[in-house]
Amino acid sequence: MGNTFGHLFRITTFGESHGGGVGVVIDGCPPKLALDVTDIQFELDRRRPGQSRITTPRQEADTCEILSGVFQGQTLGTPITILVRNKDTRPQDYAEMAEVYRPSHADATYDAKYGIRNWQGGGRSSARETIGRVAAGAIAKKILKQVAGVEVLAYVCRIKELEAHVDPATVTLEQIESNILRCPDAVAAEKMIELIDQIRRQANSVGGVIECVARHVPRGLGEPVFDKLEADLAKAVMSLPATKGFEIGSGFAGTLLTGLEHNDEFYTDDQGQIRTVTNRSGGVQGGISNGENIIIRVAFKPTATIGKPQNTVNQAGEATVLAAKGRHDPCVLPRAVPMVEAMVALVLCDHLLRNQAQCHTLKSPEAQ
Amino acid sequence: MGNTFGHLFRITTFGESHGGGVGVVIDGCPPKLALDVTDIQFELDRRRPGQSRITTPRQEADTCEILSGVFQGQTLGTPITILVRNKDTRPQDYAEMAEVYRPSHADATYDAKYGIRNWQGGGRSSARETIGRVAAGAIAKKILKQVAGVEVLAYVCRIKELEAHVDPATVTLEQIESNILRCPDAVAAEKMIELIDQIRRQANSVGGVIECVARHVPRGLGEPVFDKLEADLAKAVMSLPATKGFEIGSGFAGTLLTGLEHNDEFYTDDQGQIRTVTNRSGGVQGGISNGENIIIRVAFKPTATIGKPQNTVNQAGEATVLAAKGRHDPCVLPRAVPMVEAMVALVLCDHLLRNQAQCHTLKSPEAQ
Amino acid sequence: MGNTFGHLFRITTFGESHGGGVGVVIDGCPPKLALDVTDIQFELDRRRPGQSRITTPRQEADTCEILSGVFQGQTLGTPITILVRNKDTRPQDYAEMAEVYRPSHADATYDAKYGIRNWQGGGRSSARETIGRVAAGAIAKKILKQVAGVEVLAYVCRIKELEAHVDPATVTLEQIESNILRCPDAVAAEKMIELIDQIRRQANSVGGVIECVARHVPRGLGEPVFDKLEADLAKAVMSLPATKGFEIGSGFAGTLLTGLEHNDEFYTDDQGQIRTVTNRSGGVQGGISNGENIIIRVAFKPTATIGKPQNTVNQAGEATVLAAKGRHDPCVLPRAVPMVEAMVALVLCDHLLRNQAQCHTLKSPEAQ
Amino acid sequence: MGNTFGHLFRITTFGESHGGGVGVVIDGCPPKLALDVTDIQFELDRRRPGQSRITTPRQEADTCEILSGVFQGQTLGTPITILVRNKDTRPQDYAEMAEVYRPSHADATYDAKYGIRNWQGGGRSSARETIGRVAAGAIAKKILKQVAGVEVLAYVCRIKELEAHVDPATVTLEQIESNILRCPDAVAAEKMIELIDQIRRQANSVGGVIECVARHVPRGLGEPVFDKLEADLAKAVMSLPATKGFEIGSGFAGTLLTGLEHNDEFYTDDQGQIRTVTNRSGGVQGGISNGENIIIRVAFKPTATIGKPQNTVNQAGEATVLAAKGRHDPCVLPRAVPMVEAMVALVLCDHLLRNQAQCHTLKSPEAQ
Repeated sequence: MGNTFGHLFRITTFGESHGGGVGVVIDGCPPKLALDVTDIQFELDRRRPGQSRITTPRQEADTCEILSGVFQGQTLGTPITILVRNKDTRPQDYAEMAEVYRPSHADATYDAKYGIRNWQGGGRSSARETIGRVAAGAIAKKILKQVAGVEVLAYVCRIKELEAHVDPATVTLEQIESNILRCPDAVAAEKMIELIDQIRRQANSVGGVIECVARHVPRGLGEPVFDKLEADLAKAVMSLPATKGFEIGSGFAGTLLTGLEHNDEFYTDDQGQIRTVTNRSGGVQGGISNGENIIIRVAFKPTATIGKPQNTVNQAGEATVLAAKGRHDPCVLPRAVPMVEAMVALVLCDHLLRNQAQCHTLKSPEAQ
Repeated sequence: MGNTFGHLFRITTFGESHGGGVGVVIDGCPPKLALDVTDIQFELDRRRPGQSRITTPRQEADTCEILSGVFQGQTLGTPITILVRNKDTRPQDYAEMAEVYRPSHADATYDAKYGIRNWQGGGRSSARETIGRVAAGAIAKKILKQVAGVEVLAYVCRIKELEAHVDPATVTLEQIESNILRCPDAVAAEKMIELIDQIRRQANSVGGVIECVARHVPRGLGEPVFDKLEADLAKAVMSLPATKGFEIGSGFAGTLLTGLEHNDEFYTDDQGQIRTVTNRSGGVQGGISNGENIIIRVAFKPTATIGKPQNTVNQAGEATVLAAKGRHDPCVLPRAVPMVEAMVALVLCDHLLRNQAQCHTLKSPEAQ
Repeated sequence: MGNTFGHLFRITTFGESHGGGVGVVIDGCPPKLALDVTDIQFELDRRRPGQSRITTPRQEADTCEILSGVFQGQTLGTPITILVRNKDTRPQDYAEMAEVYRPSHADATYDAKYGIRNWQGGGRSSARETIGRVAAGAIAKKILKQVAGVEVLAYVCRIKELEAHVDPATVTLEQIESNILRCPDAVAAEKMIELIDQIRRQANSVGGVIECVARHVPRGLGEPVFDKLEADLAKAVMSLPATKGFEIGSGFAGTLLTGLEHNDEFYTDDQGQIRTVTNRSGGVQGGISNGENIIIRVAFKPTATIGKPQNTVNQAGEATVLAAKGRHDPCVLPRAVPMVEAMVALVLCDHLLRNQAQCHTLKSPEAQ
Repeated sequence: MGNTFGHLFRITTFGESHGGGVGVVIDGCPPKLALDVTDIQFELDRRRPGQSRITTPRQEADTCEILSGVFQGQTLGTPITILVRNKDTRPQDYAEMAEVYRPSHADATYDAKYGIRNWQGGGRSSARETIGRVAAGAIAKKILKQVAGVEVLAYVCRIKELEAHVDPATVTLEQIESNILRCPDAVAAEKMIELIDQIRRQANSVGGVIECVARHVPRGLGEPVFDKLEADLAKAVMSLPATKGFEIGSGFAGTLLTGLEHNDEFYTDDQGQIRTVTNRSGGVQGGISNGENIIIRVAFKPTATIGKPQNTVNQAGEATVLAAKGRHDPCVLPRAVPMVEAMVALVLCDHLLRNQAQCHTLKSPEAQ
């Protein structure tokens, strides 16, 4: 069951990095949504390897096929299946990994759990799995946009100690896509790219922080108790490869304030909407969206696969040294930006449907 | 469905802070586990209000009754229901809240979502809801202990900017319980308590960070892809009231290292076990436990309810000033320690059963 | 997880026949539904033991308490918990059952599965468990009535070989409640009651068939593929104690017709609604309600607990003879009528919410 | 969510009859199960159209591809995806159905629910959807066989009023496959086939009853309350197209007996096993398997699609006459046999894993 996400807008991803392909089945999508393969391909292109010099040189067009659920340009309400074939696979690059455990990778734990793993590439633990998430996220974004004008935008806000300055209230997709790092602060981006170039030449890797904002989210999404919006968002992004931390609103820094300093005072705006003066809550109070911008941050560790030699052991437990030969990203963040957006959109879309079910049934015209 | 947590060891909590009571139904508990009301009461006492001068003065014994699922001192395998009646309720203290929204509290979002709320106390958003979690967590801890000797221990590691120094590998329950703050660093604890006393007198509040370690967790718990152990842990603790951030292992600080610095090299120990030299992974790799200590940190914001006057609005959107009269905690962390332990234990117990199902069925004697 | 039913309108029942009590937690109920304890008590009274001479003489008022989820006469949208204490328990009547397995009862299988059981009464397998279902069903009925005017009515249509003649299109609650058997055909009811009286005096038992009609069900409820409406209805009623068979529409008799004879031809009625001339489909086509009356039938076996001596074994496998002393129903059907209604209402209400989520979100005013 | 079945051995099917293809994702399969495409193809061949003169002439090889989850002949523990491309599609045959509703088919209800449908063939309501179930069922059967020697065998036991005589305790796959109808009573089969031939020539259709036996099912599978084994079996088979009724053990006929006649008395057999003298319970007591043969029966209505002219309406509600041109089965039962087996195997396999989780975790060696 670990491969399914969401209660009503529910996705199941499948596939290993080497094998027939990877993809996703989306169950619960509303019918009659206009949907075209280009809607999905746009997001997959933002995620695909080989897109720039600071990503892995593995070349995959990641061209997707919609196998089911769409008819004459509209969703049917039946499961939408999206398949991407694996193309540029080089299992021979991974022959050594059949025996040797890559440090901080999933090889050893998969073996401990399952007693078997597909050692050609990362198998199921490869970031190729996220293709299904990004494809499904593209549909979730379309629904959110159409129902409530919701925008979900993520961007790199820190690489190692290099910080960017970005205003989540105004940042645009164009700004994010304006450089290969997906950092809308052009000045910071330049320095960050320089750092990644340098790290790449050293066969090393770096990590950083991605911030994501969701704007125009309707009030009332999210559920007490366990399915608080921040809890589901945390799970969503912490299920992405290489994540080590999650924050909403004030996050860890918020613990340095007193209650008086931290609380978001209420006021009524020009349109008569109840709003908060500040947004340390990050758009969620008591697990439910309050109409302010939802703002989260996600910590991504430096890529585990590096070219530099490291001490490790093989399956038999014997000490050895490994210098990874497979193609890899010196920094996962540029490609993780669409992944974070997808996960946030999936959570919001699921809660949109859940809220519709519980809180709008008695309001339906028939019930009056 | 937002009130249910877990797939196989599955709990459903219920109840508002004012009303008949709060409690939990636990479905999926293994049969023939020795269980007594004292097992549960011990943890509830760590969580209950009025336990010290740095917690809310609301006096609740929180005495629990086991309504079902236990027979002659053993679990039946049927749902275990635990009920705690509400006693020291003072709805009159909250009369003002029927109309006025407390800043950074859930009043306004509940109204936006449901169009109704129990304004006597926090209603469903009250921390009283966590009684059910802590009760269920006590049972999860017992199972984990019995099956694999797992220990789950949480403690306060920071209050505002005051840091404690604690070794997660050796910290004991006795050390944690040795002071009213549940911070096992006695020197730091003294300063922290002093700060909280001072903040309390100012009718203000503070937050901080709780760390939790799970020791002796068997290898192989957790599932790719969405139900990675860190993802489920993140959701679990981010569903607790007042949480703003989550980290596992190196967390946000890990983003400041290079891959070479961050990776956990493997070695084989005296017992022939494959181990890691360092533990920046926090005991989880690829979403699956690797046998090292699982270490997480959770950021708790300063308590939203404070006695100091704040600007806010009422249900009609009219500006007003609120100085909360209800009894509240100047700092939620001492009472949040058993909550964090409970949530971690629930996740681990659920994954223990899930792993048993998927990875031990073909190994059962009948299948050989 | 076996104690939870429904996806969005989700109930979890708990409790054994002897112990603290039995009850239910209902999660996902729409907020602001007017709800009073009398709404629930009405249905519990139809289910309670001791209501007539043809039911068990166990005397239980089955008075319910609403522990949570309702405030000032309205649902909160939070979990509704309903508790009924066990009162007239006579564990001593069951002392023999601690050792001896009652034929066609769950004693032996509970022992085989769990290695333990509450042998005082039926424990978890007692029909007392259905109190939670009937209580939850009362709420589901209210929602269905309010949203779409749906009526759910069950009645006894056969006892052993005695058949009743009932028109599902016009039968009323008053007719059903007009006799102690809940068979709206007065002439047949008299003979059936006579038969049950006679069987009761023989310390034996009988079974029969209950039919249930749901009228005014909106078109479009039910989901392909696995959650077809008839599949969920079948599961719902086959989860009731003592059920052996399920039919919808033409049922087993429908297999005796040719396709030409069996098909329901379409026509358009006065109001311009597409209708079917006949209703062999039983109100469901392709798993989805078509606006016609939903009609199902459920086979209930003769009560397993009888006073007559029977051969059996004890826990050690030794042969023995058992003549049950506990109080029991000579025929479960009169009390099963509200149980069947409850299960049908729960399925319909869950699908009402599911349909609202998937098929109305894009139609919401915001999405236009 | 309606396209997913099972809790731990969980399958999600996808695909329409016309479009990219149909298939299934299986999540939760134990790792290291030997699995080959031929294991699956064997069952698909039993289900495929065009296999004999009494099935639809649509020619589909239904050759399957395993896209993921299997590596070097063994399952990985990751999702197994199986895809079958649609080949012999003739959308032009269905052009009329774009407008006209086929009686007793899902056209009208899909339109009512979704406002759209793939009218080329049955779309999602086509029996092609069951390819995914049968493929997944093949894997479930392998697990059941390997763990406990379970055999699941279904067969035609009635066509219209023609009854077969089959002993569920001894029937073999070879006997079932010995004729094109899958009725192991050769004499009855001949008459049944003759009847179907005759009905086919009349452009009409017939239905009947399939019986299924599961032998060597371990004691203890199934869960009270809602997930009783018979409840999950009922849902499983009632989710197959064209089903109208379900029975377990004595079924509807059992209602004609008294309790004394109906009860299954216990005895201890030569091996010291507690057994029942009779098996009116059908292998399940209190929702839990008791070690006897599990025996169910399923009613299949006559195929809705027939060549004979019928009165109906079009989407606009206007009266018209339809004589279906698409290729269809004069009787669905021969091809439904492997579908019933698959659904029963899926239920048993899911409960095998569930039982392992709840009832074997505390028995694991670590827990002693």
